Amino acid sequence: MAESKWNRNYLICPDPKNPELTRSVKGLSHEGLPEEIKVVEEIPLTIFLNSTEIVTVMTIGDYPEYLALGFLFNQGMLRSYHSVERVDYDQDLQTVVVRTTKTTNFEVKLQKKTRTSGCAVGTVFGDQMELIEGLQLPFLKVKTSWLYHLAKSINLTPSLYLEAGAIHGTVLCKEDQTLVYMEDVGRHNAVDKINGWMKSKDIQPEDKLIYTTGRLTSEMILKTALMGIPVLVSRSGFTAWGVEIARKVNLTLIGRMRGKRFICLAGEERLERNILPDEIGDEARKHRRKGAAD
Amino acid sequence: MAESKWNRNYLICPDPKNPELTRSVKGLSHEGLPEEIKVVEEIPLTIFLNSTEIVTVMTIGDYPEYLALGFLFNQGMLRSYHSVERVDYDQDLQTVVVRTTKTTNFEVKLQKKTRTSGCAVGTVFGDQMELIEGLQLPFLKVKTSWLYHLAKSINLTPSLYLEAGAIHGTVLCKEDQTLVYMEDVGRHNAVDKINGWMKSKDIQPEDKLIYTTGRLTSEMILKTALMGIPVLVSRSGFTAWGVEIARKVNLTLIGRMRGKRFICLAGEERLERNILPDEIGDEARKHRRKGAAD
Repeated sequence: MAESKWNRNYLICPDPKNPELTRSVKGLSHEGLPEEIKVVEEIPLTIFLNSTEIVTVMTIGDYPEYLALGFLFNQGMLRSYHSVERVDYDQDLQTVVVRTTKTTNFEVKLQKKTRTSGCAVGTVFGDQMELIEGLQLPFLKVKTSWLYHLAKSINLTPSLYLEAGAIHGTVLCKEDQTLVYMEDVGRHNAVDKINGWMKSKDIQPEDKLIYTTGRLTSEMILKTALMGIPVLVSRSGFTAWGVEIARKVNLTLIGRMRGKRFICLAGEERLERNILPDEIGDEARKHRRKGAAD
Repeated sequence: MAESKWNRNYLICPDPKNPELTRSVKGLSHEGLPEEIKVVEEIPLTIFLNSTEIVTVMTIGDYPEYLALGFLFNQGMLRSYHSVERVDYDQDLQTVVVRTTKTTNFEVKLQKKTRTSGCAVGTVFGDQMELIEGLQLPFLKVKTSWLYHLAKSINLTPSLYLEAGAIHGTVLCKEDQTLVYMEDVGRHNAVDKINGWMKSKDIQPEDKLIYTTGRLTSEMILKTALMGIPVLVSRSGFTAWGVEIARKVNLTLIGRMRGKRFICLAGEERLERNILPDEIGDEARKHRRKGAAD
């Protein structure tokens, strides 16, 4: 099967041959013999909102503008794309500055906060929980045949993961089509990059779903919900609080998806079971992720 | 083989039957049938250094005091255990307050910082890199037979991972003995908890090694180096910058360790290859981590 079959529909897909994203390093094998392997790059990127330094994240370094934008929106620090004036990436300084037309509410709040207790890191979390207060994600019919097709297609798409391991993939999909496939050292970065792309292109979320290789933690579920995407699918497992948040906002949450198997822990009513799992069978050994991104 | 064989030597080991750490949740399987699975808890814990709110981390919730202490030391925010007066955990408020006898340098620096640019998150990273400037980890002979024994022993130790998946394990070891086995939703929390335990008990690092199930990213390698531990072993893969830091501080870095296989990318001179890999063989399928903590 030609590889091209699996990435012809992507608007953005991994670029495993990009020499800036991986590096060959030499070591010694278990037998004491020289061995050379490819490893992914990991670089610090500092995100500014206007003149305020927000955070330094570790990233593989592709799409820094999308990462910064998506992060700020997913943290509730930016609320409307229309206020974004410019996004400037400086490769030498490893910084991205997101500039808005006027000072954001977040900056005002931060100034107040830092006058009293010194730092705003701890408040971010509370802000995200406030943002989902009352949120109910829209209805969307999801055929299980789409999910099986997506899982297979994503597993077979050439990726940095297949090239060098130790990396997570997150894919924005519509029905059985893969649209944007982002990878990064942290699964939160990959979903932030998708969010940055969506906000830049004014892409509507309500008919989309996200497939991720990473675990379904509260962070991933909060981000997906804040993006307005009603379905999140993973080959990995769950945390209790992640499940709780998904049920609260009525997100369809599917995990442990391998071959024909999966378990749906929230939002089951969106699923249309239009295919018999036995038509899919168990996951072939060669398609198993070998845990390099554990 | 009795399970007890594998945890008799631990000073601290996982407590998979603790009802506060996992929860049963009900869902529907791929066949549309009711299915109940166990998932790990994930709760927010806010860490204060005296009156300064530092960060909110997501954790399974065991050993909050060790987590807070270990985090502050690993970030360079605390420098000497002798200045720690008290550590107070409040379960209702989900907070840990670490109190020192006098205001720390970090707090002074933070006050300066927040007057100018608002927040200190981005500075933390630069501080950690400064802390390893000139650091050279001590020599320690490491027999490959120890590594094989440790890997097997840790894989067979009853754990939250085996109970519910979606969690990382990090183990402090000495020679072929497992000492402290911490698990958490983030691998950085697990290593922070080990650091908190070591600092509290005044445990010396130079004859220890760390085994982790997680990836060898820059964060894990910085933490291990700052703890003064000269050897870090993982069943997962590497990032380029992690390898670079390990080589800079002369940390022995071993990854992709499964069955007889591994690759050593830094500090090879500490290894004494006292066993033929073929005596170990390939990893049995039943001992493979199934990626639930991807």
